[in-house]
Amino acid sequence: MTPIKDYIQANKNRFLEELYGLIRIPSISSETARKPDMQRAAEYWREQLLKAGADKAEVMPTQGNPVVYGEKIIDPKAKTVLVYGHYDVMPVDPVELWKTQPFEPQVIGDRLYARGANDDKGQSFMHAKAFEYMVKENCLPCNVKFMLEGEEEIGSPSLGQWCADNKNMLEADVILVSDTSMIAPEIPSITVGLRGLSYIEVSVTGPNKDLHSGIFGGAVANPANVLAKLISDLLDENGHVTVPGFYDDVVEIPQEERAAMAKAPFNEEEYKKALDIEAVSGEKGYTTLERTGIRPSLDVNGMWSGYTGEGAKTVLPSTAHAKISMRLVPNQNWEKTGHLVAEALKARAPKSVKVDVKLLHGGSAYGADLGSEAYKAAEQAYMDVYGKLPIPTRSGGSIPIIATFEQVLGIKSLLMGFGLEADAIHSPNESYLLQNFFRGIETIAAFYKHYGK
Amino acid sequence: MTPIKDYIQANKNRFLEELYGLIRIPSISSETARKPDMQRAAEYWREQLLKAGADKAEVMPTQGNPVVYGEKIIDPKAKTVLVYGHYDVMPVDPVELWKTQPFEPQVIGDRLYARGANDDKGQSFMHAKAFEYMVKENCLPCNVKFMLEGEEEIGSPSLGQWCADNKNMLEADVILVSDTSMIAPEIPSITVGLRGLSYIEVSVTGPNKDLHSGIFGGAVANPANVLAKLISDLLDENGHVTVPGFYDDVVEIPQEERAAMAKAPFNEEEYKKALDIEAVSGEKGYTTLERTGIRPSLDVNGMWSGYTGEGAKTVLPSTAHAKISMRLVPNQNWEKTGHLVAEALKARAPKSVKVDVKLLHGGSAYGADLGSEAYKAAEQAYMDVYGKLPIPTRSGGSIPIIATFEQVLGIKSLLMGFGLEADAIHSPNESYLLQNFFRGIETIAAFYKHYGK
Repeated sequence: MTPIKDYIQANKNRFLEELYGLIRIPSISSETARKPDMQRAAEYWREQLLKAGADKAEVMPTQGNPVVYGEKIIDPKAKTVLVYGHYDVMPVDPVELWKTQPFEPQVIGDRLYARGANDDKGQSFMHAKAFEYMVKENCLPCNVKFMLEGEEEIGSPSLGQWCADNKNMLEADVILVSDTSMIAPEIPSITVGLRGLSYIEVSVTGPNKDLHSGIFGGAVANPANVLAKLISDLLDENGHVTVPGFYDDVVEIPQEERAAMAKAPFNEEEYKKALDIEAVSGEKGYTTLERTGIRPSLDVNGMWSGYTGEGAKTVLPSTAHAKISMRLVPNQNWEKTGHLVAEALKARAPKSVKVDVKLLHGGSAYGADLGSEAYKAAEQAYMDVYGKLPIPTRSGGSIPIIATFEQVLGIKSLLMGFGLEADAIHSPNESYLLQNFFRGIETIAAFYKHYGK
Repeated sequence: MTPIKDYIQANKNRFLEELYGLIRIPSISSETARKPDMQRAAEYWREQLLKAGADKAEVMPTQGNPVVYGEKIIDPKAKTVLVYGHYDVMPVDPVELWKTQPFEPQVIGDRLYARGANDDKGQSFMHAKAFEYMVKENCLPCNVKFMLEGEEEIGSPSLGQWCADNKNMLEADVILVSDTSMIAPEIPSITVGLRGLSYIEVSVTGPNKDLHSGIFGGAVANPANVLAKLISDLLDENGHVTVPGFYDDVVEIPQEERAAMAKAPFNEEEYKKALDIEAVSGEKGYTTLERTGIRPSLDVNGMWSGYTGEGAKTVLPSTAHAKISMRLVPNQNWEKTGHLVAEALKARAPKSVKVDVKLLHGGSAYGADLGSEAYKAAEQAYMDVYGKLPIPTRSGGSIPIIATFEQVLGIKSLLMGFGLEADAIHSPNESYLLQNFFRGIETIAAFYKHYGK
């Protein structure tokens, strides 16, 4: 059997050329004019899966852009890995900031520059190549299914329904995803937590029209002042959310796990410098990484009232509004949380105003199981390739589809990401470290070896 | 001599058409793009004064928008009345709430709808027409000077200096102003107190760019949340301003005067009903009329941060802003008050953000002399037209220039206002009761008769 390192060495130019073919299709999902490119990208993936050794592969319609599904079933009783990725990319504006053509991949130094070089064309393509190796060398130890969508960058509006409609076909033991980052080139990590989101909009109405702030100021409740107080009262001086019941479903992370998290390299001085702030700020008793990783939070995302133009207008506004969102940790329900906050806001409002709250949207948090077979196989795979165990990290952000997979398909995901912060995904000059592309292929193949045995 | 009632009846359509010409010029002083309209409005006034019978009238430059000055001197030894008004108006946002075009005057029922219909184009124009009558009928008993500025709604930043520069030209015994309201259509009143104003703009800056609220939320101070707390903390649970030193210069009004004020007709139930509020709100220990008449107050006039469009954007905003103004009572200095509030905001801000405060503008409060000849002449004029004495009232609003007139020119003002609360000045659908426009002309002419004799 050819060792994978040798296989990659012998085929690396072809691997890249095949990836370039995918990258050259400008599959920007947020631009409706790109519809034909979405179809082309899906067809390209289908061909690549068949070439790599899939028994079958097809482009399946959804309510939006198609999903590419492929599979190789070696034994119905063997374990099954379902690979998820997305072939759509973010827009390229502001295009004038790109140093290369965004859809013409170019290697400069040790990096490949292009839109999608990492997110997620580069990262998802590693799975095709690891799969190809295992099929060609006849060492695939389990069943593999592929599912590649074309709407991740616009919130995966069709994939949940498509999964529900194809639940049997998608049966698997684990969903394998490469769409996240590692801490540093030599510090592998697995994303084991993603926060959920509950997003509300609050409106405070006082008098039935804007009033003259001189004639009425001091005698009529000002909705902007009231809203400021309502918002202010949502957090106490220790950064705790004061809404009754808010923390009821929050599971405290064991001290050992917090200790493990604390080993992740993190430089608070650099963090503050990058953001140009004098001090970090957040819930008392938790570190910065804990505040975004394992604790829920509450932020105003937008706020508006009265006169916001140039100069001075002496108006006592009739209404004041805020968009407020809560980031949630596993076991918190987004709708329940939204309602708790809404009820608190209404209960705390003085009689002199009316308060209305709308739940705009949300999604659940996700927590991986660090004791699972899949997680342990991934640990061994990283050990094989990097010589060290991956650090479990928790991202403050949300990938709502991961929680959807668990809810709809009942399958946990394993987030083996090989991106780096320097890759500038979603920004001009997105790139991907070539070394991470090739080591990713190696690590994925190693994962199968450990997981399938 | 034609009785004034008859003169008005014969000329009412022309009076209105001439007023419409002024209203149709969108002279919004807070919008720099309106500069040419300010000039046009001033020129229009100059022509109207000459047509009405002024010996001379001119558009005089200032550091900002021009002042229109006109005069008719019948006898250098006679008394002189200096009429003050303003030709600038407030912005029209939110324009979608207007039922008519704001700059296309329209009579609906017994009211004229337009921006400036009352404030102050409608009210100031009554003086032109009363003057016209007295000149045409050859019954003007004293000298009259006119001074119309174009920056009242932005705090009259240039008029004080212009007055100082033209002090001799402006010599007068009293300044006559119609820019206030009466209690009800049949209850004439004279405003004997005006609150001052100190208007600031606060900016809170956190991180140097908008951040992803998932990745950073909970670990980085959110400027919108911080601003909400800073605003909230400006008032305590009793409606007192918490800024150290804020009340130091406030003179308590004697109990007898508060008792006299309490006799003014005021129906709190109707007040609440008109505003569609369940409860009034304000400083503990004071009535609604006292809260706006004799006590300082603090209001947010505008507030904005982050994403304010449709739907949800998970942004942790880099900045948050508010326009805040304090209404002041006699003896409070507006600049000192603005600085006190600014210092309190800065001192209370956490280290995680930067706070910047600008003093936008302001003016002192004003108290009239109820024993003056002018006040007594005005009482008789109202008695002639309305059959009852005017009630002395204290307005919560500010006409900062009134205090400036006293300081710079040494002349007291007489505030004969014919507006009504229902006129919704500064709001969408500003209007003016036509009957008040015509009775105002009558009352002003009657004032001259009593004062000039």
